[in-house]
Amino acid sequence: MKKQIAVIPGDGIGPEVTAQSVKVLDAVAARFGHEFSYTYCLMGAAAIDETGSPLPLETIDACLDADAILFGAIGHPKYDNDPSAKVRPEQGLLQLRKALQLFTNIRPVSAYAALRHLSPLKDKQLEGVDFVVYRELTGGIYFGEKTLSADGTEASDGCVYTRAEVERIAHLAFAAARQRRGKLTLVDKANVLETSRLWRRVVQELATQYPDVAVDFLFVDNAAMQLILNPAQFDVLLTENLFGDILSDEASVIAGSLGMLPSASVGKRTALFEPIHGSYPQAAGKDIANPLGSVLSAAMLLDHFGMTEEAALVRTAVDWSVNAPFVSKDIDPVNFYFTSTIGDLLADYVSGRA
Amino acid sequence: MKKQIAVIPGDGIGPEVTAQSVKVLDAVAARFGHEFSYTYCLMGAAAIDETGSPLPLETIDACLDADAILFGAIGHPKYDNDPSAKVRPEQGLLQLRKALQLFTNIRPVSAYAALRHLSPLKDKQLEGVDFVVYRELTGGIYFGEKTLSADGTEASDGCVYTRAEVERIAHLAFAAARQRRGKLTLVDKANVLETSRLWRRVVQELATQYPDVAVDFLFVDNAAMQLILNPAQFDVLLTENLFGDILSDEASVIAGSLGMLPSASVGKRTALFEPIHGSYPQAAGKDIANPLGSVLSAAMLLDHFGMTEEAALVRTAVDWSVNAPFVSKDIDPVNFYFTSTIGDLLADYVSGRA
Ligand SMILES: [Mg+2]
Ligand SMILES: [Mg+2]
Repeated sequence: MKKQIAVIPGDGIGPEVTAQSVKVLDAVAARFGHEFSYTYCLMGAAAIDETGSPLPLETIDACLDADAILFGAIGHPKYDNDPSAKVRPEQGLLQLRKALQLFTNIRPVSAYAALRHLSPLKDKQLEGVDFVVYRELTGGIYFGEKTLSADGTEASDGCVYTRAEVERIAHLAFAAARQRRGKLTLVDKANVLETSRLWRRVVQELATQYPDVAVDFLFVDNAAMQLILNPAQFDVLLTENLFGDILSDEASVIAGSLGMLPSASVGKRTALFEPIHGSYPQAAGKDIANPLGSVLSAAMLLDHFGMTEEAALVRTAVDWSVNAPFVSKDIDPVNFYFTSTIGDLLADYVSGRA
Repeated sequence: MKKQIAVIPGDGIGPEVTAQSVKVLDAVAARFGHEFSYTYCLMGAAAIDETGSPLPLETIDACLDADAILFGAIGHPKYDNDPSAKVRPEQGLLQLRKALQLFTNIRPVSAYAALRHLSPLKDKQLEGVDFVVYRELTGGIYFGEKTLSADGTEASDGCVYTRAEVERIAHLAFAAARQRRGKLTLVDKANVLETSRLWRRVVQELATQYPDVAVDFLFVDNAAMQLILNPAQFDVLLTENLFGDILSDEASVIAGSLGMLPSASVGKRTALFEPIHGSYPQAAGKDIANPLGSVLSAAMLLDHFGMTEEAALVRTAVDWSVNAPFVSKDIDPVNFYFTSTIGDLLADYVSGRA
């Protein structure tokens, strides 16, 4: 298969970790007879430095033309400390999400046996953890009407959802559940919120189209407890934007390292794949960042291409490296491997040379 | 001191656990020369059975006249399984909260060394955990305007906060921080929400009146992570209604047993004290419920009366019973003590007889 991939290395450790994913993707292409071509694009602080804009038009065009986008990270401290800055790196990603209408954020969480000691949870809680959060990304209270009274004494935020907004992400979540263990949990607050009742009605209706998926419902406060008490009970968690923001971040600490976690954002146009970690500027250029979040994002990208076997092989390579252990400094501060070495080892494994 | 206490045993295990608190309060009164008199009131399923209403007028009157309210739990399965029920037990508590204008919910969380094996978190995370959540209880999105379009395709929830609503709870939280370790963390989403920016501005302004309190700010998604990664960093957590609902429930699992956790709801009229656990009908009448959540609520009630030494003695008694261990079946399913026995032992300890 021929595929065009837009690569946005971005800021901080973004370029380093993304380079390892490209190595792995090249190894996949060679082994399975695919042809991946890459268009490198600017976004974030790197783009501001070169063009003045955090999201140059060429980047948008390249992304719209691509079959998928592989993104590293965004953000630079020089903008954090400058409140007068007119453009900020993060605006690039927000604008790109908007241009691509990325309405679903997908975050898988699984616990590696070899990394259990890093998790804040006990081993008992980590046994069998393997779920994915589907978070709505373009609606709800973050994008609702905001008001502030003239005298500054009263503020408001509106939360709106339409049936169509719920349907499109719910279909994605049901389809994912069907490919996984056949369980979908809607997280809402339907005992209190009208928007939650709409979510629940739509999901109950769609459930009849997916008779092989078992659906249950959980209030968001209870979900926040269950994620810690018994995360292994979940398969696909579906929820609205604000609840998803809170719960997917809560869920991200289960695995013991933010450096391990991939994500995908899917919408009406090209899908985007990125590790959940940030640009981590302190580590930039030191070859010590964990490339596995990016490499696992590349595996999601392969799944998105329908390359299931290829994606599975990349995940097996990651398991192998974690168990070896060929891990980065965040995982083992004493006996660690460099970012680039881990990338080489993963590519070798995928090529059948390791 | 003479104090009038309205006692609402409620449903399920409510009466059993509340009876132990009354034993302990009587022991406190005897030892310190106070005079506590109790007015027993109906609320919930027990009230519906006897009067037809989940909150009889006599209960409201007795609560308004009392110096404090000690409440057990509410809810009965016969109403959960009857969607046609016109009155529901839970309405009683909602109506009482409204009548008393209880705008602040206070939930302390601490980790008992003897119960660490019950927590889903590792020992390292539990070291030094001792914080309290101040949750706004009468404003925000739960009480905002709700709409549903005529065709059912669009729903909305409004979230409104006024400066006055933020100020009154913020003052309580600052005062609490001053009595504790002098740290207040406001949890908001001020990078996105207008109401959060109002909360942040008000808290920043009030901070000048409490120069001895260190204030910091945390986004709610980050707070959901930090509560698991490093809960010992917190002293007083202040937040709005929805965030507080999610975070206080998330925090409640840290301690390892919901049966241990007390709460207070404070407002313009009489304050109310209750364990966070529910009516747990399966255990009702078996003398196996954990009375410590209620007894620690009674300790908060004593603090509310300004009886600091008395409250501290009750907490010491609870520590002693947990370490003995004289614990209920939820803590030790094999070698457990009955609810009533634990109450007797605690009263004996308070009396100086244990
Ligand atoms: Mg977040
Ligand atoms: Mg709750």
